[in-house]
Amino acid sequence: MSTTIKLEKKVLSENDKLAAEIRESLQKNKIAALNFVSSPGSGKTSLLEKTLQTLRNQMKIAMVAGDVQTENDANRLIAAGGERIKPLVTGGSCHLDAKMVSKVLPDIDMNDLDLFIIENVGNLVCPSGYDLGEDMKVVLISVTEGDDKPLKYPGMFRRSSVMVINKIDMLALCDFDMDTVKKNALQINGDLKIFELSCRTGEGLDTWFAWLKSLVAEKKASA
Amino acid sequence: MSTTIKLEKKVLSENDKLAAEIRESLQKNKIAALNFVSSPGSGKTSLLEKTLQTLRNQMKIAMVAGDVQTENDANRLIAAGGERIKPLVTGGSCHLDAKMVSKVLPDIDMNDLDLFIIENVGNLVCPSGYDLGEDMKVVLISVTEGDDKPLKYPGMFRRSSVMVINKIDMLALCDFDMDTVKKNALQINGDLKIFELSCRTGEGLDTWFAWLKSLVAEKKASA
Repeated sequence: MSTTIKLEKKVLSENDKLAAEIRESLQKNKIAALNFVSSPGSGKTSLLEKTLQTLRNQMKIAMVAGDVQTENDANRLIAAGGERIKPLVTGGSCHLDAKMVSKVLPDIDMNDLDLFIIENVGNLVCPSGYDLGEDMKVVLISVTEGDDKPLKYPGMFRRSSVMVINKIDMLALCDFDMDTVKKNALQINGDLKIFELSCRTGEGLDTWFAWLKSLVAEKKASA
Repeated sequence: MSTTIKLEKKVLSENDKLAAEIRESLQKNKIAALNFVSSPGSGKTSLLEKTLQTLRNQMKIAMVAGDVQTENDANRLIAAGGERIKPLVTGGSCHLDAKMVSKVLPDIDMNDLDLFIIENVGNLVCPSGYDLGEDMKVVLISVTEGDDKPLKYPGMFRRSSVMVINKIDMLALCDFDMDTVKKNALQINGDLKIFELSCRTGEGLDTWFAWLKSLVAEKKASA
């Protein structure tokens, strides 16, 4: 058992070293970087499609679309107008790590880039433990999943800076209380910034886009 | 890297040995055993609540409710009338393993038991690799998650015998095609038995209950 733990620590410290290199390179070029995490089917790709459709003429965006299998998500992002999109198929691994990301980075045009988004594998547990060099993790939760998820999967909500509550158009059909989910999430992480939106109806997306723009502006203005 | 692989193989072979012991003990007592797997929020606990409410007077049922944190699910199952319910909090681990299950088994009354159900951690990747001594894995998918999930998380659908499509009352609100999800799932695993149901409206539950009863009857009649 101690061998397992030692090995895990070694793997994680190697990951952290690589993540720091990625972060330094993004920072040097003043590129804002987000790591999108959630359960399968919470709407990561849908939100990124909407983001590309609305913001691609206002800023330069690159995305890495992680999946266990298929390049479906990357193809959806390209169809949504994304020009700097790379699929990252793990072939079985339940999360992305910094090594995988650093391998695809040379294939992405970072020239004049404003925003770099990594869409992680759909998994509310394992990706929480891996720094990919991002500025912050954005955790999505859809109202169909239940308002208890922050308490049941605390690691992910603790390590994220932003929580997006998606599919709010389905609220009436779900046993999901908005105040409860916020209370549960803030109990785990009092610093969480929270967005409520629906990729299907478009409700709440304007606030999300405005925040992304302010994030990019802040990064450009940073020392 | 080879150290990691060797260690993983050793951990898995130890798991398989323990799982075989669990299976033998369940088999000897003619107890049907299912391992429920899915993304977080697909409705594993909801389906188990409905199952207890309807079948608890017709057969003896025990359940282990696995979660990363909280005993919420176990409490819901007890409130639904379950008398032999044990929580299994992993404290961080993204899946249950046979060692965890064998540790809680002595606390469960197996006397005259007909059906033993393990509710795994909500995770569509990692639990697929761990045999818990069950007769079969039952994978749930809700229509809100999208019809591409079997292709994107093939390991889980390959290693499951049954696929339950839940939340069919929400079909009209989702970009989810029933024929497509079945085609995708059967492409990964042609032997999958498929149920369509809604825990919210009750549609399709009768077929599910009838199948569970036939499963238990077959087990009792087995050599």
